[in-house]
Formats: sequence, C-alpha cells, structure tokens
Amino acid sequence: MKPAARSRLHLEIDLFRAGKSTGFIRVPHSVHRSAYGWLPIPVACINNGEGPRVLLMAGNHGDEWEGQVALGRLIRDLDPEQVRGRLIILPSANFPAAQAGTRTSPIDDGNLNRSFPGDPDGSVTQQIAYFLEHVLLPLCDYAFDFHSGGSSLMYVPGTLCRRDPDPAGMARLLGLMRAFGAPIGWIGSALQGQDRTLTAAARRQGVVCMGTELGGGGQVTPSVLALAEAGIRRVLAYVEAYTGPVPARADTRLLTLGGNDYYVYAPDGGVFEPLVELGDEVKRGQPAGRIHFHDTPWRAPTTASFARDGLVICKRVPGRTERGDCLFHLGTPYDG
Amino acid sequence: MKPAARSRLHLEIDLFRAGKSTGFIRVPHSVHRSAYGWLPIPVACINNGEGPRVLLMAGNHGDEWEGQVALGRLIRDLDPEQVRGRLIILPSANFPAAQAGTRTSPIDDGNLNRSFPGDPDGSVTQQIAYFLEHVLLPLCDYAFDFHSGGSSLMYVPGTLCRRDPDPAGMARLLGLMRAFGAPIGWIGSALQGQDRTLTAAARRQGVVCMGTELGGGGQVTPSVLALAEAGIRRVLAYVEAYTGPVPARADTRLLTLGGNDYYVYAPDGGVFEPLVELGDEVKRGQPAGRIHFHDTPWRAPTTASFARDGLVICKRVPGRTERGDCLFHLGTPYDG
Amino acid sequence: MKPAARSRLHLEIDLFRAGKSTGFIRVPHSVHRSAYGWLPIPVACINNGEGPRVLLMAGNHGDEWEGQVALGRLIRDLDPEQVRGRLIILPSANFPAAQAGTRTSPIDDGNLNRSFPGDPDGSVTQQIAYFLEHVLLPLCDYAFDFHSGGSSLMYVPGTLCRRDPDPAGMARLLGLMRAFGAPIGWIGSALQGQDRTLTAAARRQGVVCMGTELGGGGQVTPSVLALAEAGIRRVLAYVEAYTGPVPARADTRLLTLGGNDYYVYAPDGGVFEPLVELGDEVKRGQPAGRIHFHDTPWRAPTTASFARDGLVICKRVPGRTERGDCLFHLGTPYDG
Amino acid sequence: MKPAARSRLHLEIDLFRAGKSTGFIRVPHSVHRSAYGWLPIPVACINNGEGPRVLLMAGNHGDEWEGQVALGRLIRDLDPEQVRGRLIILPSANFPAAQAGTRTSPIDDGNLNRSFPGDPDGSVTQQIAYFLEHVLLPLCDYAFDFHSGGSSLMYVPGTLCRRDPDPAGMARLLGLMRAFGAPIGWIGSALQGQDRTLTAAARRQGVVCMGTELGGGGQVTPSVLALAEAGIRRVLAYVEAYTGPVPARADTRLLTLGGNDYYVYAPDGGVFEPLVELGDEVKRGQPAGRIHFHDTPWRAPTTASFARDGLVICKRVPGRTERGDCLFHLGTPYDG
Amino acid sequence: MKPAARSRLHLEIDLFRAGKSTGFIRVPHSVHRSAYGWLPIPVACINNGEGPRVLLMAGNHGDEWEGQVALGRLIRDLDPEQVRGRLIILPSANFPAAQAGTRTSPIDDGNLNRSFPGDPDGSVTQQIAYFLEHVLLPLCDYAFDFHSGGSSLMYVPGTLCRRDPDPAGMARLLGLMRAFGAPIGWIGSALQGQDRTLTAAARRQGVVCMGTELGGGGQVTPSVLALAEAGIRRVLAYVEAYTGPVPARADTRLLTLGGNDYYVYAPDGGVFEPLVELGDEVKRGQPAGRIHFHDTPWRAPTTASFARDGLVICKRVPGRTERGDCLFHLGTPYDG
Amino acid sequence: MKPAARSRLHLEIDLFRAGKSTGFIRVPHSVHRSAYGWLPIPVACINNGEGPRVLLMAGNHGDEWEGQVALGRLIRDLDPEQVRGRLIILPSANFPAAQAGTRTSPIDDGNLNRSFPGDPDGSVTQQIAYFLEHVLLPLCDYAFDFHSGGSSLMYVPGTLCRRDPDPAGMARLLGLMRAFGAPIGWIGSALQGQDRTLTAAARRQGVVCMGTELGGGGQVTPSVLALAEAGIRRVLAYVEAYTGPVPARADTRLLTLGGNDYYVYAPDGGVFEPLVELGDEVKRGQPAGRIHFHDTPWRAPTTASFARDGLVICKRVPGRTERGDCLFHLGTPYDG
Repeated sequence: MKPAARSRLHLEIDLFRAGKSTGFIRVPHSVHRSAYGWLPIPVACINNGEGPRVLLMAGNHGDEWEGQVALGRLIRDLDPEQVRGRLIILPSANFPAAQAGTRTSPIDDGNLNRSFPGDPDGSVTQQIAYFLEHVLLPLCDYAFDFHSGGSSLMYVPGTLCRRDPDPAGMARLLGLMRAFGAPIGWIGSALQGQDRTLTAAARRQGVVCMGTELGGGGQVTPSVLALAEAGIRRVLAYVEAYTGPVPARADTRLLTLGGNDYYVYAPDGGVFEPLVELGDEVKRGQPAGRIHFHDTPWRAPTTASFARDGLVICKRVPGRTERGDCLFHLGTPYDG
Repeated sequence: MKPAARSRLHLEIDLFRAGKSTGFIRVPHSVHRSAYGWLPIPVACINNGEGPRVLLMAGNHGDEWEGQVALGRLIRDLDPEQVRGRLIILPSANFPAAQAGTRTSPIDDGNLNRSFPGDPDGSVTQQIAYFLEHVLLPLCDYAFDFHSGGSSLMYVPGTLCRRDPDPAGMARLLGLMRAFGAPIGWIGSALQGQDRTLTAAARRQGVVCMGTELGGGGQVTPSVLALAEAGIRRVLAYVEAYTGPVPARADTRLLTLGGNDYYVYAPDGGVFEPLVELGDEVKRGQPAGRIHFHDTPWRAPTTASFARDGLVICKRVPGRTERGDCLFHLGTPYDG
Repeated sequence: MKPAARSRLHLEIDLFRAGKSTGFIRVPHSVHRSAYGWLPIPVACINNGEGPRVLLMAGNHGDEWEGQVALGRLIRDLDPEQVRGRLIILPSANFPAAQAGTRTSPIDDGNLNRSFPGDPDGSVTQQIAYFLEHVLLPLCDYAFDFHSGGSSLMYVPGTLCRRDPDPAGMARLLGLMRAFGAPIGWIGSALQGQDRTLTAAARRQGVVCMGTELGGGGQVTPSVLALAEAGIRRVLAYVEAYTGPVPARADTRLLTLGGNDYYVYAPDGGVFEPLVELGDEVKRGQPAGRIHFHDTPWRAPTTASFARDGLVICKRVPGRTERGDCLFHLGTPYDG
Repeated sequence: MKPAARSRLHLEIDLFRAGKSTGFIRVPHSVHRSAYGWLPIPVACINNGEGPRVLLMAGNHGDEWEGQVALGRLIRDLDPEQVRGRLIILPSANFPAAQAGTRTSPIDDGNLNRSFPGDPDGSVTQQIAYFLEHVLLPLCDYAFDFHSGGSSLMYVPGTLCRRDPDPAGMARLLGLMRAFGAPIGWIGSALQGQDRTLTAAARRQGVVCMGTELGGGGQVTPSVLALAEAGIRRVLAYVEAYTGPVPARADTRLLTLGGNDYYVYAPDGGVFEPLVELGDEVKRGQPAGRIHFHDTPWRAPTTASFARDGLVICKRVPGRTERGDCLFHLGTPYDG
Repeated sequence: MKPAARSRLHLEIDLFRAGKSTGFIRVPHSVHRSAYGWLPIPVACINNGEGPRVLLMAGNHGDEWEGQVALGRLIRDLDPEQVRGRLIILPSANFPAAQAGTRTSPIDDGNLNRSFPGDPDGSVTQQIAYFLEHVLLPLCDYAFDFHSGGSSLMYVPGTLCRRDPDPAGMARLLGLMRAFGAPIGWIGSALQGQDRTLTAAARRQGVVCMGTELGGGGQVTPSVLALAEAGIRRVLAYVEAYTGPVPARADTRLLTLGGNDYYVYAPDGGVFEPLVELGDEVKRGQPAGRIHFHDTPWRAPTTASFARDGLVICKRVPGRTERGDCLFHLGTPYDG
Repeated sequence: MKPAARSRLHLEIDLFRAGKSTGFIRVPHSVHRSAYGWLPIPVACINNGEGPRVLLMAGNHGDEWEGQVALGRLIRDLDPEQVRGRLIILPSANFPAAQAGTRTSPIDDGNLNRSFPGDPDGSVTQQIAYFLEHVLLPLCDYAFDFHSGGSSLMYVPGTLCRRDPDPAGMARLLGLMRAFGAPIGWIGSALQGQDRTLTAAARRQGVVCMGTELGGGGQVTPSVLALAEAGIRRVLAYVEAYTGPVPARADTRLLTLGGNDYYVYAPDGGVFEPLVELGDEVKRGQPAGRIHFHDTPWRAPTTASFARDGLVICKRVPGRTERGDCLFHLGTPYDG
C-alpha cells in the first residue's frame, strides 16, 4: 500500500485488509553501509468490520519501554474477533531510537515528539513525523500515545490530555482518562513541546488524543506494565473498539499542570539528592533537592526549592545532573 | 606529602597532620589540551590521636552515587573531636568516571574494581589502583568500600564480605555487617571480579574490608542515603574510630552468595521485562524475566528462569538488554 | 568568476576561457580549525569554439571510484584541440565524501544524490547540490553522471536513463546508451532517490542526462575502468563534443527497471550468503540469498527469494547485513 | 518575561526592571540525559532611567575569550548609577560553544554568526540566532559584538563596521570606532558571512552595530584584555550610556577590507610557516608563507604569495593546515 | 566446565560430553550498560568415541566471512555418527569483531591474530587469545584456522602453512593442504604477524596447524563458500575425524611466500588503480598499480612496481588508500 | 636494514650507506582498512666518514612544529660534504600524532615522551619508543630532541638538560646549551615525565642528550624558527659533526628548574586570564592568573598565585582551562 503522495515511507501491510497484518514501515535510508536500504519500523493492523479507527503507539521516545512491551503483547494476543473497526499498532514509532535504547534517534539526534508536523524531505525522524501526521493520523478517530518517564524521569503513572475548550470534547477526554484507570490524570494547557508533539499533530488532524506517562527510569516494572495492559484494554472497550473482557479499574485523581512554577530545575551541575518522593504533597518554599559538588565535596551543596504548593508527580532519576535539568514537577487539583 | 617511591600520583594533603585536611590526589595527565596537567581526585583526612586507621571510599564505580554523597557529607559534618585515629575519606575514587557519571573511566575505559593491583606506569585507572593498593591501604587497618548497583543494577541495600576461613576474622566481619545495619548482608567466596577488586587488594595488604551494595539505578534516594549515613557512623563507632551519637540500627539478614546458579543472564538481546521483584523468594525453574523482540514484536518473547531457590537481592534496571547481561542474582540463608 | 547570485560557492576558474583550465570550486567552511577556510572541489573546463556544452561528473557518491579515476585521466589526457564546445569536468563532486572514501559526506552525513535541488544556505552537501543545479546545469546541454555500486553494491556495468515520454527524447537517450557501449543499459521510471537526484535536477533544468552504474564494491578494476574510459570518449564523440579516435564498442542489452518486486531486501540481520551471481537469469520464487545468524550459528538461516523473473544486475557486497538492506535487484527486457 | 511569540527561549530576568539583574536565557533542550532540560545562557541587564538601549555581546564564537572576560567583568563591576538607559550584556552568546571552548556548538555544529536570521523551530544555534534577531535586537539602539580571532586566527586588535552609504550613518560608525580606540579599524562592504551575521541582523532590525576583532589564538592576553575593557567603557560613554570615568584612548588607523585579493589561502595541506608578521606592510607577489610536507620532509614546500599590496592585519595560528585555510588577510588605507 | 585456572572465561558446554553440544564461551565484561555481563562467543563441540581432537575456527578476524558461514553450516549439518574423536568448532572466534563486521574488535581495537599468547588479565581480545592458547589448544591435535582476505584484501583461494624443518611434519602439512584442495597452497617462513598468531600459538602448544585465505573483500561468494565447505570435509576425512562422504578435490599449486620483495605497498595516499589481476604472472619492474590524487586530478598519478617475478595471489580491494597499504603480494613456485 | 631482533619496525634506508638517504621507518599496522599496512615515519640519514653519531629528532609530540620544520629544512639543505660522522634525522618521531596535529597519537592516545622504554609488542606509540631506545639510540653519541610548548603551552625559547652529577658531563651539557644559543637554558633534576622520556632513555643508553622548548602555541613563528635553524647548525658544529658556516650566537641565561613550587596550576575550571607575561620576574604570593566562571559571569573569578620567586618561562595558552592544568612555571638562577 502506497502512502500519501509526498511521504517517501512505504507501508508493507495493507491497512484495509481484514484480520491481523504485521510488517514494517520502510524508511528509505541510503548510507555507506547500504546504498539502497531502508529502516524497518514494525507495525500491525487489525481490521474487523465497522467501528472506530484507533492508532495505538509507543516508542515515540525510544527509551520509554512500558508502552512498547504492552503494545507488542497486544499485537500477539489480541483476537481480531474481539475488535470492532480498525486498530493500527505502532509499538516503537521512533524505531532507530528504540533499537539504540535512547530517547532520541542515533541517526539524526531527532526527538520525534518535537518534530511534528515533520518534513517529507527532512531527516529520518522528520520523515517519520510527517508520515504519522499526514498518512496515519488522517485515517484515525483516536490516537493513544503511550509515553513513560524514559531514562531521565520517573512519574506517578498517569494519563494526560490537552485542555479542550469544548465541554463535550473535554468530557470525552475525561472519560478516556477515567477508563484507562491510572492513579492520576492531568489536564494541561501548556504541555512540554507545544505544537511539535504527536498530541498537537492529532489536534491539527481532528483526532481525539490521549497520552500517558507510565513510570520511567528507562526500565519495565511488573506493576506498571500490568496497569498499561489493563488500561489499554479498558480504553479500547470505552471507545467500543474492543469487545473482550476488561479488568476492573481504580479511580483516577485528576490534576492540572501549569507553567514554570510547577517545575523545579537544577540550579547548578553536580549530583542530585532528592529530598521528597513521588506522591508527596509539598509546600511553596519547601526544599526539593540538593546538588552536591562531587569535584569538591567539602563545599556545601546547593538547595533547590518548590515555587508553589502541589503534588509531586515526576522526579529526575539520574544522580549526575547539569544546570537546567528538570528535577521535579508538580500537579494541582483539577478544578473541572 | 610524597607517596611510595613508584607511584606517580601526588597527595596535596598531609595524612599525618592533626585535624581535618582536604585537597586532591593529583594524577599526572599530559594530553593535547594540557601538556603538564593533572586530574584532581578529591580526598579528605581527619586525624585525632590514637585509634584505628580507616579508609572510607566510594566512587570506585563512577555512577554509584549513594556512597559518594554520604562521604561528602561526612567530610563536611564530622567534628574531628569525635574521631579517634585517622580517617582517610575518598568519596569519588575513580574521579574521571564520577565526573562523567559512568561506571568506568572515559579516559581509558578502566573499571577500577577490575584493575587491582594496578600499575604505576599504566593507564590512569591502573595508576589509581596502584596508589590505592600500594600507598593508601598499607596505612590502614580497615577499608570500607561503598558500592551501589550503579546505572545497570538495583540491590536490596546490603553489606558484603569475603568469607574468612579464620573464625575470629569471620566474627569481626559479621560484627561490621551487623553494625552497619543494612537489611541484608552477604558473605561470598567467589565475588564478581575476584582478585582484581579493592576487597582483594585489602586482603593482600592485611586490611579488614567490608563493602556495600546500596540501592542503585544510577540515582540517589532519600531512604538509601539515610541508611548509608547512619551505617557509616555505626560502623565507625563499632571500630572505635568515632565517639559521636549513632542512630539505632535494624537487624541484618545474613545471606550466602554462591556460583553461576545464583545468577540469571539474558538469553537473547531485546527489552527486559522482570517477572519478580527485589526481595521475592523464588523457586528453581520459576520464570524470572522475559526478553521482548521490539524489532519484531509479533514474535514471542524468550523467558529466562531461575536455576535455584533463593531470595532476589539484585535485578537489572535498563529495559534495553543484550545477551549475557545479568538480570538477577539470588542469595540463600547464611549457614554460619 | 562569480556564480549565480545566491550560491555562496566560488569558482576559481573561468568557464568561458579558451583551452583547458583547472582549479577548485571553493565551498566556504568556517569551523573551529579554520575560521575563514573553504573546501576545495577540483574542477576542470575545456573550451574550444562552438559545440555542445557537456557536464561530466563523478564522485556524486564519494566511494564510487571508477568514474573519478576515468575523469581525472580525461582532464590530464584530453587535447583541447579534439574538443568542440565546452566540457566541464567534476571528478569528485562530493569531494569531502571522496576524500573520506565514503558514500556520504563526513561533514553533514549528506548524500549528494538525495539533496537536489539543494539549499544555498543549507549544509555543505546541500550547498553543493544547489550550485550544481542552479549554476552549472543551466550552462549545459548534456550531463553525464558516472556512478558505480560503491562500497555496498556491485553492478553488471551499465548505463541508465529515465524514461522520456517524448519519442525523440527517448531515441536520443537510447543513442547515448548505445554509444557508451556498456554490457547493459536500463530505462526506469521510478529510480532510487526520485526527485532529489542529479538526474532529476537535469530534467528540471532541461539538460539531457545519462547515468552509469559501473561495477562497484568500493574498488577499481582494470576492465571496468577500461570500459569507462572508452565509453566516455564514445559518448562525447556521439554528441560531437570530441573529434579524436574512439575505441570500437560492443552491443548494449536494454532493460527495464520496475518497482518493489524487482528488489530483494534482507529479511533479518546477520551475514549474507548470495545464492545467485550477477548476470544470472532467475525465476519468481527462486531463493536469492540466505541471512546467517552468526551470534547463534546453530540456528537455521533465513532465506530471501525473488518476487519475479528477471536478470540479476546488482548484488550486495558486504557479508554483514541488517534487515532492510538491498540484496539484489533485477532487470527485465526493455519493450521499447 | 516571555519573549516574542514564536521564540521558544525563555528569559529568567525582566529586561525592564530597574537596576542590575542577572540570570539565564533558557534554551529548551530535551535529550536522553534530561527529558525536560534547558541550556543556560548567562545574561545580565542594567536599567537606569532614560538613555540609549545597548546590546553588548561576546561569545558569538565560543573560543573568542577576550570579549567574554571583559563583559563578565563589566557585569560584576559596573555601578548601575553610572548607566543611562539600558544595557543588555550577553558574554557567551553561543554558550554551548563557549562551554566546550570551541568556535561552533558541539550540539549541532552551529556557527552562530552564520545562522542569522535563525529559525524558532531549528537547531539550538538557529534558535539562539532567532532570539537575538527577533527578541533582543528590536529592543536596542546599538549592538556591539566583541569578536576575536579565536583558535585559528590572530588579529591586530581592531574594530570593524559595514560601510554605510548614508554619510551621517558612516560618520556615526567612524565615531564609534574612534571612541573604542583600537590600533586599527576597518570598514568593509563584503565581510565574511555576509547576510547571516549578527551585523547583518542588526542592520535588518535598524540597530547601529560595531564589531571587533581583538587578538585571538584562543587565548587571553593582558594587553588585549586591557584594551577591550577600556574600549567598552569609551564606546558606552560615547553613546551616552555610561557616565563614569573613561581611560584615555589612542588613535585608530582606518582601513578598508576588500575582496578575494585581500586574502591568502593555503595552496596545499601540511604545516604552515608564516614569512611575515602581523602589522607588516607587504607587496603584491611577496611570499606570504610556506606549506611544509611533514609526511615527506625531503620534498620542497609550497609557497603562497600576496595578491596585492597591503597591511597584514590577520594571520593563521595553527601549524597544521589544510588546503583552503585562510593564512593571512590584508587591509588597505581607508579612503573616506 | 571450568577452564584452566587463570583464564577468566567460562565455557557453558562440556567438551567431554558425547554427541553435539552448543552454547557460548562467556567473556566477563563489566561495563556501564551492564555491570555483571559477559560477551557470548558461540561454540560447538562434537564428541564420538576415539579419534583425533580437532579445533576448527574462523572469525579470528571479524570480517572474514567464508569460514564463519561454512563452520556454522558444519555445526548444523554434521551428524555426530560421522565423527571420530572430538571437534571443537568456533565460527566467530573474535565475536565482538564479527558482530560489528570489522577486522578488529570494537571494544579494544584488538587484532586477535596479533594478540597471542594473550593475557588472562588483559583486554577482551587478549583474554580470548589467552583462552585459545592455554585452554583450547592444549586439548587438540589439529587446529584449522579459516581466514579470508577480509574487507581490505582479496586472495586466490588457498591454504597456508609455516615451513616445518622436520620432513615428516612438512609432509603431513602438505598432505593437509592437498586434502583441502584449494587452487593454491603456500608455505612460508616469515608470515605476517609472526609469533603473535594462532599458527604460532599452535606451534607453541605442539598442535598441527593449517590456515586458509579464502577470497575476501568482506563478502561471501557461492564458489568460495562451496570450496570452503568441501575442503573442510576433505581435511577432516584426511585426519580421520570424519567418515561421511567427501566431494572430489582439484589439484593444489604449491607456492613459497618470501620477504619484503614479495609485497607491493602504496607509495602515496590517494585512489588505487590495479594494473594486474589476481592470478597474473608478473615480472620484476612491471607496473603493479597507480595511486591517483583525487584532490588534484590534474596531477600525474604515482606508479608502484613489482620488486620480483611471481604469481599475484593477493590484491588490495578498496580504492581509497594510504601510503604503506599493501597493494599486492606474490607467490613463487615451491621448491619442495 | 633490519633493526634489533625484537623490534617489529622496519627501516627502509641503510644507516651505514655513505651520503644522504631518505625513506620511512615502517610501523606494522594491521587494521580494518588495511590488513597488511604500515605507518610511514619519515627519516633521513647522512653519512660522511668518521665523526660523531648524532640523532636529531622532533615531533616527539605531534603539535610541536618548530623543530619539525627546521629538521625538514636540514634534510633538504644540508650538503653531505659538510657533515662528519653520521646524522640520523627524525623530524616527526610520533608521526601519527604529527599527521593529526595533536600532542598524542590518535591511534592509541599515546604520549611518546611518557612511553619509554617502550614495548616491542605494545601499542604503536610503545613500539616507536622501543625502537628509539633499543635500535636508534645505541647507534648514537648524541641525541637532540627538539620540543616546543605545543598547543597548550608557550615558552621563552630555551634548551634544557638533566643535571649531570659528573662535572665533566655537566660541562659538556652546558657547552651544548651555550652553543645552541637560545635566550635561556635550564638544568633540572626532576623534569616532567621522569624516567619515561627520550632524555631518560638516552641516559640509560649512555647517549649525551639535550632538549629544547622552542616557543609553542601550536604554531610556527619566523623568529623562533630562525633560532631553531641557527641553533641546530651551531650545536652540530660544536660536536664537530658539521663543518659549514654557522650564524653568530647570543648569550644564554642559565636557570634551574625545581619542584612543585615552581609551577602554578589552575585551582578551578573556567577561562584563564594571565596576569603576568613570559619573561616577567615574579615574587612569591604575587597573583599569577584568574579563572573566570563563564557559566555564571556574575560570580567573582578565582585567583592563583606564585608559590615562590622566579622568572616566568612558560605559560598556558588556551583560555578554556580545567582544574589541574599548568598555568605557569618558573625558573631560578642556575647556581653552577
């Protein structure tokens, strides 16, 4: 199947064929070691009659594993008979990054979630972004983008959406978040990356979009993976794309994510010692973490403090830190 | 002060001067950007009359932060009046690695804990090992080497010692371990790295040596750091090198660490999903983890299983894994 | 001589001066090691009265040597008295790549033949493409671009052209191909690289363009070099740009190159064992090559097969192969 | 304070607050080691009532230190009471390059002074250029950009301006140059980098702009630093932005900088031996330097000569040289 | 099974177990991405009663593929019932190099065949060499080391041995070479690499050793692979380690390899044009190849000539060449 | 000519042949891009009857150009009739470093002057050191090793020798230094690099050795080059190896070089501002330089001071500096 005129990527599978298809999206890649080669992004598609059209993707950042593992299992386990409509499943969207185990692509240093709307003649990551926004998204009603904290951050597992000014739209987003059933869900108006994310691309293409931040630290944990797998089935059932059994869900605490005062950044370079834990309620002015000077350990560390009250939903993982690295960010109760 | 004849390293501070001294061990480093430069390894020394001579070191691996932060605080906070004898404190022993935030040195790829007895004319890491074994250790009665799991592993916090065939020696080691007060302590006869570790160097130099494995994942956590700081004071008090207040300690569960059947290794490359958690009791044959093939997610993952019963004391952190990476290791009850 | 207004490249030689001129195209390159430097792309020009204006270039990919050596010899050996009109000879068009011996430029990873129409403010490779399309091509009637298989591919030596819907244009192209006298010649409508190649640039500028694929494997062989040198003189004589002696030519077998089913790609990563040779006639379904798993040699290799009947005109050279690398491509008889 | 709508950079300080403010320009940088980090470009601002609005910047190239050190001292030493209007001081404009000690940025190989007008969605260096041209310059009447020769070039210390066709504008520029008081000052119509420099950006934004070339060789010297510090105070006093004491100035010799014949480039690669010194008056045809072949020292060196008469104002520093590197450039008397 | 005391490598399989065993040699490798990992070198062993003990190895250089593919097939296809004695099969001896597709190891730049007798505490390549010489070779009567030309050289397929001063030993070596049945076989007294090769190690351990040079160019060809597979079975049958069917063999032309005058080296850097082909008989003084200056193609190339008469048995493949690269080497008739 | 038994290096030229010979020392180098290649170190030899045997070398560090250029000219210009005895001239002793323009070798990071006595089986730099100490030095009476400050340091041009406890030996060294005629000459007992330098190797081999430090900064200047060329001829005349004309010489000021208090090192990382110049007489406690914090320019710089009185003979060149870099070193009057 040939994608839209301008994209140079080639889909091995037919997105309109009934049943389950698996194969690769081929990204042309003409380099010294292979003049006429392509990079293989794995993709699966399940079609079963009428129903919603859903894109499920992970690996937007290559080192966010929970969604990649959960979507791989979905490809293997899902019975097409339990599907209604079409699922396009893209477990490792920035495959070169996932192959390397890094947030960004080793080929062009590209951060896929800062590359939309992409460029059909640009770098590999820009070509992938273009294909997602201009070939796959226009074929979909819903897009679910499964992120985690990756190598540098750890989250209280949660779902997230952009605030929708239309009440019906907002209600639909809240319904998706409650269906997924993560401990927290956040609604933001100024998310990181702004108009260059998959979320922004989905909005431009008129696609309903929900994201997640599931754990992180560059690892997989049994409990977060279990949440991811159950949440995916619940949200597919919620949009009536899946008719199989779904596990029971817990309540989701809804939060708002605001601007700069929700974040704590490293005031200096050194070794980061956190002074609070994920899930703590903190107060404005409370010490958040220390930066230790391991080149001159007799020098007193620098302390960073919270700029407002809130719930700690994200913290930095690696000890080694540079000035400007995000150490924490907060959420505050969602006001509806 | 000039160290032993053959080492080319230079100590800025006088190890025999009363009170607290801080400065650098200078490692000559003649390179393009600086023909006559040296690398600065921070070091502190506290002398106060008669008493045991103790080496406290961390940063043997550069990305094991808990001990580095705890020893830095010890340098800043310890009142020399509360010391008896001499403490030599080396928070970032392989400083080039700690500066880079990596296990091994970016200068020579050197793993310091696989470099003993070192070489005075070798690479930077080999020169550091030589200095530790031949200059610092001969000045000491005790050596405490504070490791953690680093970027790739996470441990149940613990202390560890090599089995001592002499009952009195063994009793002394067990006393140190109980004094430190970590949740677990292990005694091994075939530890990783064998005769090339600081532990082996200490044994060669007749120095009583205890190590730790404190958390890991390349991060610092408040609870493990608190354990490290309390444990250091307790063990210094136990050897009568410290007369200040000590926090109460918890019991330590003693374990034995055996050979290859205590370890689970990745049977293939891919993404690692653990099936058990740290602290779980497992049975021989029980599935330990899966390796997922994220390049072809429709392919079933490979499962690795435990080769014996035991307690899970260590697990791999990063999702991205290659064949041969250690996924878990076990401990079994210490038989005395 | 100053090139067209927007290009930042500077031509040392005067393209309108009678006789033979040699020098460099200067590509401004302001970097740490030289704030006001330029990169020197060697170029020659021969003018002798009225006649066609011809661009002869090689080194579009830096590791395709046959054309580079043949054009260097042409610069040294050609007597201006035997020329009619103007020859612009550019033996190493992507000179930084040729200097490094690689397909793409070490400066910007640029593949020149995927960079047209170029960008006067872009990377070095994009600036070269812009200069070729907007400065040199508008001065020419013919462009001959001498490619080979490069480091990763080996070809049955051949000429190639894009299919021209105009019968007169097509006849002229066939005449050029027959004049060159390679064993095969192919006509394609969907060549690799599409609208970003020198061929596409020439079409946009109204220049008649023929390419070659001469051997490959990153090497020079006496027989292919002899063909290149004779073919260049024959084709120059054919367009009446050269009046000297020409060696006799052999017949050229005309072929068509089609879409995806003409190509065989590696289904997995490993070591490539070809099962056919260049020049073989193969059948649909016939095994083409095996990919061996040298990390687990007891595992059976994967076999790739041809998707259609045809003549093997290109094969991959390096044993070490990744999924998606082109292993073979085919030609089928030209139907006129 | 939020900069202009499209730039993604964030200013920590308020440019309209009275007195001296210091902090960072935050460049969002989402990478593997820090998903939500930013790069910190140090900036200071001094406001004191009515007066001219002046941008003082250095570190446009990261290895040009004289201006960076002088502006750092200005930030520390200047009493806001002695200021009239507003000074924005940006000592290390391309901070990632300055941090690395290189001309260009290690993040994207970007040469900031070849990146204007920049791109708000481009690479880090392109984003900095965009912020400078579209956020900071529109707030200014004057821009002073303190360059030096950097690692590869050494200059007779001087000021430089683009020729202004308006006599009043030209007089103002000459006044600035005389006020700064460097040994030489040059007026050029075709400066290196053309429309992609800060100078060109300033002209586009209607800002009066003067640059410098202060020494070089990648180093700081006491005499050039003293000139820089005195010259900055003199030029600020000249535009009535500074009311404190100013050191006396020397006369400036005015020169013109012309086209290609003012430059000498390396005709080959090897080791560069200069045959003249900075400040020498040279004649057309005079030998300028030799390139020695240190791989075959028995081979005679190549000699490069001057293409016109003039004063040597710039020479290459490093011995190791490639074909195309600038060895010298000349100035000729300014004709008014 | 635990290898000899000092080697740190661990064999997963039991070399004394009847039948076919496959698994890995584990090379301990403690690095940032895996603190307790090992590198997996694949190995197989077939035991069947009494008989000779034979080591078959390839991948001594990682980019010599013919032997690696042939030995992998031997592991899969050989019926243990057809074996007599013990075969140890090591298809990719320097596995990190083979995995990367390079001659030398990407871990330590180690050339395994210049690393004997190895070092149990040295780099990864030195540890592999030590294990081969001190653990595996002492268990063997014969060692066959299947080399090819690799990425940089192409050979007339041949076998090679060191001259044995003992006539019985020499006869046995000639018998092995004739049994293998390659087009040529050479006997040398001063082979490349001298006392640091596997051949030298085998001699030190009293093991009869034959090598090969099978094609090259970093590729696999059907004809050379067929020779390798047949030759391996013939030579195993000759030493009575194999009782299955053997293909008929061709005659081998015996040659002597001498000192410096048998080799032609590049007199300069540039692009290599060979003037003779493999298998040509050449005369002293005959031009062998040209080095073209592609940076200044108007400059005449340099010609290298043969220093003696002989048969061309090896040539350089890559066009891009540096001074000192071997272009050709010769053989002369073996005098018995 | 074959060098001593154990060295693997091969000399192309015959050191005993009358007249001038030029060629290469071949260092075997078997790597991916060339399996049987060698690295070419240029060397020349002039023999003319009886007389002293002298080694003249430069390029011990690859970025010290003055001696390399001067010795290249000596090779080209010296008339063998003016020589007595034998001169071995090695302009670029660590040729891979000189080719790269770096202090140390890009192949193995080797600092040749920290590699003696070398290792015949070691890295490339260790093999060169072994060849110099064990093959060339035993053939010589005198060794002159022409260093400069290189890329990171600048010297008052001088000669240097190790203190010789034998008065006759010391007088001979002083005679050599006075004959060379540099502005200063120093005698040291604890020179940088100690027993691993060429000077130490010469002493071990009973060869009279004098070194130089000629300028630096990684550049060539006309005045220092003129001194080098004249000094070389004067010192050759002094040992009666040269009978041609010699330029007049100036007096040399003799200095002593002592231990740590003669050096000033950077107390922190940042940008180095020197406060004194080469040739200044300084006092203990006098400020020597400042380290500026260009990441936070509002922070006061750190000042480093001299630890004793003396003459400034060496200063650091590059602005960007790390803690531990040498900023200055001093000399004090030679006491005889």
